[in-house]
Amino acid sequence: MREIYLDNSATTRCFPEVVHLMDRICLEEYGNPSSLHHKGVEAEAHLREAKQIFAQILRCSPENIYFTSCGTESDNISLIGSALANQRRGKHIVTTRIEHPAILETAHFLQQQGFEVTYLDVDSNGIVDPQAVADAVRPDTILVSVMHTNNEIGALEPIAQIGEAIKRKNPDTLFHVDAVQGFGKAVIHPRSMHIDLLSASGHKIHAPKGVGLLYIGDGVKIRSILFGGGQQKGMRSGTENVAGIAGMALAAKMLYDRFDEEMDRLYGMKEFFVSEVQTMEGVHVNGLTGRASAPHVISLSIDGVRAEVLLHALEEKGIYVSSGSACSSNRPHISDTLLAIGTPKQYLDSTIRISTSVMNTREDLQAAADALRELLPFLRKYTRQ
Amino acid sequence: MREIYLDNSATTRCFPEVVHLMDRICLEEYGNPSSLHHKGVEAEAHLREAKQIFAQILRCSPENIYFTSCGTESDNISLIGSALANQRRGKHIVTTRIEHPAILETAHFLQQQGFEVTYLDVDSNGIVDPQAVADAVRPDTILVSVMHTNNEIGALEPIAQIGEAIKRKNPDTLFHVDAVQGFGKAVIHPRSMHIDLLSASGHKIHAPKGVGLLYIGDGVKIRSILFGGGQQKGMRSGTENVAGIAGMALAAKMLYDRFDEEMDRLYGMKEFFVSEVQTMEGVHVNGLTGRASAPHVISLSIDGVRAEVLLHALEEKGIYVSSGSACSSNRPHISDTLLAIGTPKQYLDSTIRISTSVMNTREDLQAAADALRELLPFLRKYTRQ
Repeated sequence: MREIYLDNSATTRCFPEVVHLMDRICLEEYGNPSSLHHKGVEAEAHLREAKQIFAQILRCSPENIYFTSCGTESDNISLIGSALANQRRGKHIVTTRIEHPAILETAHFLQQQGFEVTYLDVDSNGIVDPQAVADAVRPDTILVSVMHTNNEIGALEPIAQIGEAIKRKNPDTLFHVDAVQGFGKAVIHPRSMHIDLLSASGHKIHAPKGVGLLYIGDGVKIRSILFGGGQQKGMRSGTENVAGIAGMALAAKMLYDRFDEEMDRLYGMKEFFVSEVQTMEGVHVNGLTGRASAPHVISLSIDGVRAEVLLHALEEKGIYVSSGSACSSNRPHISDTLLAIGTPKQYLDSTIRISTSVMNTREDLQAAADALRELLPFLRKYTRQ
Repeated sequence: MREIYLDNSATTRCFPEVVHLMDRICLEEYGNPSSLHHKGVEAEAHLREAKQIFAQILRCSPENIYFTSCGTESDNISLIGSALANQRRGKHIVTTRIEHPAILETAHFLQQQGFEVTYLDVDSNGIVDPQAVADAVRPDTILVSVMHTNNEIGALEPIAQIGEAIKRKNPDTLFHVDAVQGFGKAVIHPRSMHIDLLSASGHKIHAPKGVGLLYIGDGVKIRSILFGGGQQKGMRSGTENVAGIAGMALAAKMLYDRFDEEMDRLYGMKEFFVSEVQTMEGVHVNGLTGRASAPHVISLSIDGVRAEVLLHALEEKGIYVSSGSACSSNRPHISDTLLAIGTPKQYLDSTIRISTSVMNTREDLQAAADALRELLPFLRKYTRQ
């Protein structure tokens, strides 16, 4: 049975080119970048090249690029590290109700440490209002954290406008953007968007799990939260994951080198799939569609069918999707995003996420649409019994 | 030119079998372990198998096994996580002067947070006295951290005796062991050694960089220091590095499956090399040798030759060694370990480390000995000019 993987917002398959590069590093260029001899220099060159690739994509200096173990770690450093470094100036943080748990749980931790956190509402499409952000920013607000692309419904936040609104209200307030879902699928230039800190993750862009990116703008006051050998200018101790870093950089380069044509293709696939499901009874698309939304995420609420039942029925046809967000661990959890956009109660448990990548084709989405059309009447009948 | 890599305490080449397994995971079994569908289940099975492998090696339950991004992170969680969780009981921590920076720098951070840290001396071979540990433990001592194997001179600490001494003095004091250099080269059974927390690293045992292990004993009070999706029972949020974890487990299994014969071979190689250098004028072996020392680390202090000069001279012959410890980043740094064992001042800058692995042969060490014999007179002459 052909596998149709439509859970790319949970994680992606590695590009074969990325695996090939990592193999070479693990088997031949395996030195420790801190070693003074040739094998160390060779490994360090991979780090330098990776920083240059990300600097080009983000239009910044290689000096702004740091590597972590995952998006969660990048988010934690951004929040905890800037809270620790700036707490004398203020203890107020602003974020939104639809952030990933890596932000929301870290914000809860900071609340326990005596910080005050404002959680902003979003509209019914999951969009944050830049004016509401500006209104929430106070003289003692040290940080605002807003995600670039929502992982559950694909809402695209107006990051540049939010950045501008923050800095107009309080130029000292840092702006962190969790771009784990947006990086690789959107043009992001931190400087022109007033972004001070930006998180991204390797395994969402066809690189392996276990590597993340953290952009830190010039002069941003932040401190390390992991202590040791002083790697990465003391910002992130621990021997660098050279293969993962080089792999993530290559994957990013591959995505941005053919960005326009692939984004056109992804948006075309999304448009096609949305038009297909709109012909199905009792299937509702959450959030905006088209260029106002992320190219790769489609959230569907379905009348009278439990998400988990549908997920497993699709699985039997080799089609892999997600129920709600699969970024969290197995524990059952009501989606913060679905609650925040005012999803009617009967849909909280009846929402699936379909997420594509450049590895998918229109045929994959045709197959998914066909499967839904076939399964839904059957599953509804079954549920009603 | 044949490469002779003798810097295995800095990092190791991956086993080809490990790379092969990781390739399969990155390209075929690439699911997110938190996903409910088949691709998630497949990925989760890799985590479960890895935990079982480590549980067998460490003679514990798979429930005691957690995965991190590196040894440094495991050390940081052990120190900061147990300090945060137990600070109401006391704020005193005991460690030694010869720990890796991942311990020493984290201890400094905790001192800034109001904890009191006692740094124990070692003898001239780098050995910690269990009685001195017991003497340092007080009613308010929440944690003792002692490394298993010193990374610079290969000192093997009397871990079981230290564990017993701690628990006899204060059964509530947690015992953390940094086994980054010891795991894979020693039999370590945390329960019988009274170890509550143990750190290990993938890239020191022929698995890739970017993955670490943390053993947490039953009932140990510790809290997370990274917040997010609640993976690994909330102890370490962030999508698990499945390929790295499975790779590290396979590497560990390969090492422990042929443990006795490979240890005999490594000790034989060390003995051979030590006997070679003992015939060279002005070359001194630091610390103990034979079975009282680690099988893979040999520290040499050399009269009248700067370590860095020798390192590069060996490099030109394709032989890679380290000057002092290469675990830290490039910055020049006087070795804490060499200072603590009372190394005469003229050797602080004239000490190299040769570290082997199961990938080395006696021929490699023969070549290194021959190169030293040839180079030292020449380099001394050059230095004297």
